Amino acid sequence: METSSKFKIAILGGTGKEGKGLAYRWALAGHEVIIGSRQLEKAQAAVDEILAICSKPVKLTANTNEKAAQMQEIAVLTVPYTAHQAMVESIKPLITSKLLIDVTVPLVPPKVTRVQIPEAGSAAMEALSILGEGSRVVSAFQNISYERLMNDQEIDCDVLVSGTDKESRELVIALARDAGMRAWDAGPLENSIVAEGLTSILIHLNKKYAVEASGIRITGIPENHQDTN
Amino acid sequence: METSSKFKIAILGGTGKEGKGLAYRWALAGHEVIIGSRQLEKAQAAVDEILAICSKPVKLTANTNEKAAQMQEIAVLTVPYTAHQAMVESIKPLITSKLLIDVTVPLVPPKVTRVQIPEAGSAAMEALSILGEGSRVVSAFQNISYERLMNDQEIDCDVLVSGTDKESRELVIALARDAGMRAWDAGPLENSIVAEGLTSILIHLNKKYAVEASGIRITGIPENHQDTN
Repeated sequence: METSSKFKIAILGGTGKEGKGLAYRWALAGHEVIIGSRQLEKAQAAVDEILAICSKPVKLTANTNEKAAQMQEIAVLTVPYTAHQAMVESIKPLITSKLLIDVTVPLVPPKVTRVQIPEAGSAAMEALSILGEGSRVVSAFQNISYERLMNDQEIDCDVLVSGTDKESRELVIALARDAGMRAWDAGPLENSIVAEGLTSILIHLNKKYAVEASGIRITGIPENHQDTN
Repeated sequence: METSSKFKIAILGGTGKEGKGLAYRWALAGHEVIIGSRQLEKAQAAVDEILAICSKPVKLTANTNEKAAQMQEIAVLTVPYTAHQAMVESIKPLITSKLLIDVTVPLVPPKVTRVQIPEAGSAAMEALSILGEGSRVVSAFQNISYERLMNDQEIDCDVLVSGTDKESRELVIALARDAGMRAWDAGPLENSIVAEGLTSILIHLNKKYAVEASGIRITGIPENHQDTN
């Protein structure tokens, strides 16, 4: 079911599993997606890999991160934490008033099962502090096992969506639905540390209980729930 | 199913819904529980309330927080965040080498739907910093809707158990099972901010989607899971 309007989405640093998985699902849902990378060839290789498994024609192209950010109306950040700050600074002049969806998890190898709290409170709050008050930043998708995104499997994990404003959170909830996921409005962007930190706990659970992809589901809310505000 | 050994448990500041709910379930599971309060009369009133609904004889008594902490082998902290630091300091000399289970959520009214990160990283890490390195502190039960604990309902919410050491986490996982809950080893105590912060998100979900008790379930781990370490 494709519920949202069609958007022009740039997936920056989108050559990893996260970026390719989201690009695949959003392109199939009819959105116009550009995968960005520092090297155009790497972005093109990711695009070719996705096109090879698409069951129908899609709007998916490659470009540099800067061009991709400039051309599209929504920027999605799927970079390793070490590249996060520099990337946000470099795209800042290119995404003014655009929506930034931050998927970054502040993992610090090798202790990836230990929650790390960035000085700003979370990676997403760090992005907001760089972009400045009044910017639109939403945090989402950190807990999804991306291996499952590239092959039409049902995803047994909900998405917690926190963000600077309600409208942006609702847009990202609709985008998550387009990608086949159930998503929830998790409140202000300050709440992003929970979704970011949960990734470390899920990695710990995967190791501890010898599974590939633990996840979370929200309980206690009926499918036909009311939305009060 | 009662799987753990029987313990002597002090529930400090245990006259609120959280404390009474846990006391009720642990007492019914055969543990020896003392409810502590600053005022003995308040602790006794809580005990009387619980005894009135118990379906069989239990070992449940009232005392002051200090006496309760001194007498029992496990201390459980269910106080409002404003009382947290002072309480940990006051029981520090009484619980040396005992296990502290910290249920505290750093809620800051009126913005209870916004995650607050204490300077130490979480309420539980704050407790550890007061008690000192080498102390045994476990964080658990922050996400449980306590209204459901007092009436034998099934609880549609898992417990994330983080803590200073694996043995203490396993003990608390067994105690959660005794209280009718499914619990998971969520890793080191640094991970406590996720469970603490998740409470703010669940309160947000309750308001946003007009429900009484949203919760979380861990997915992707079979019931008959292996435990690798």
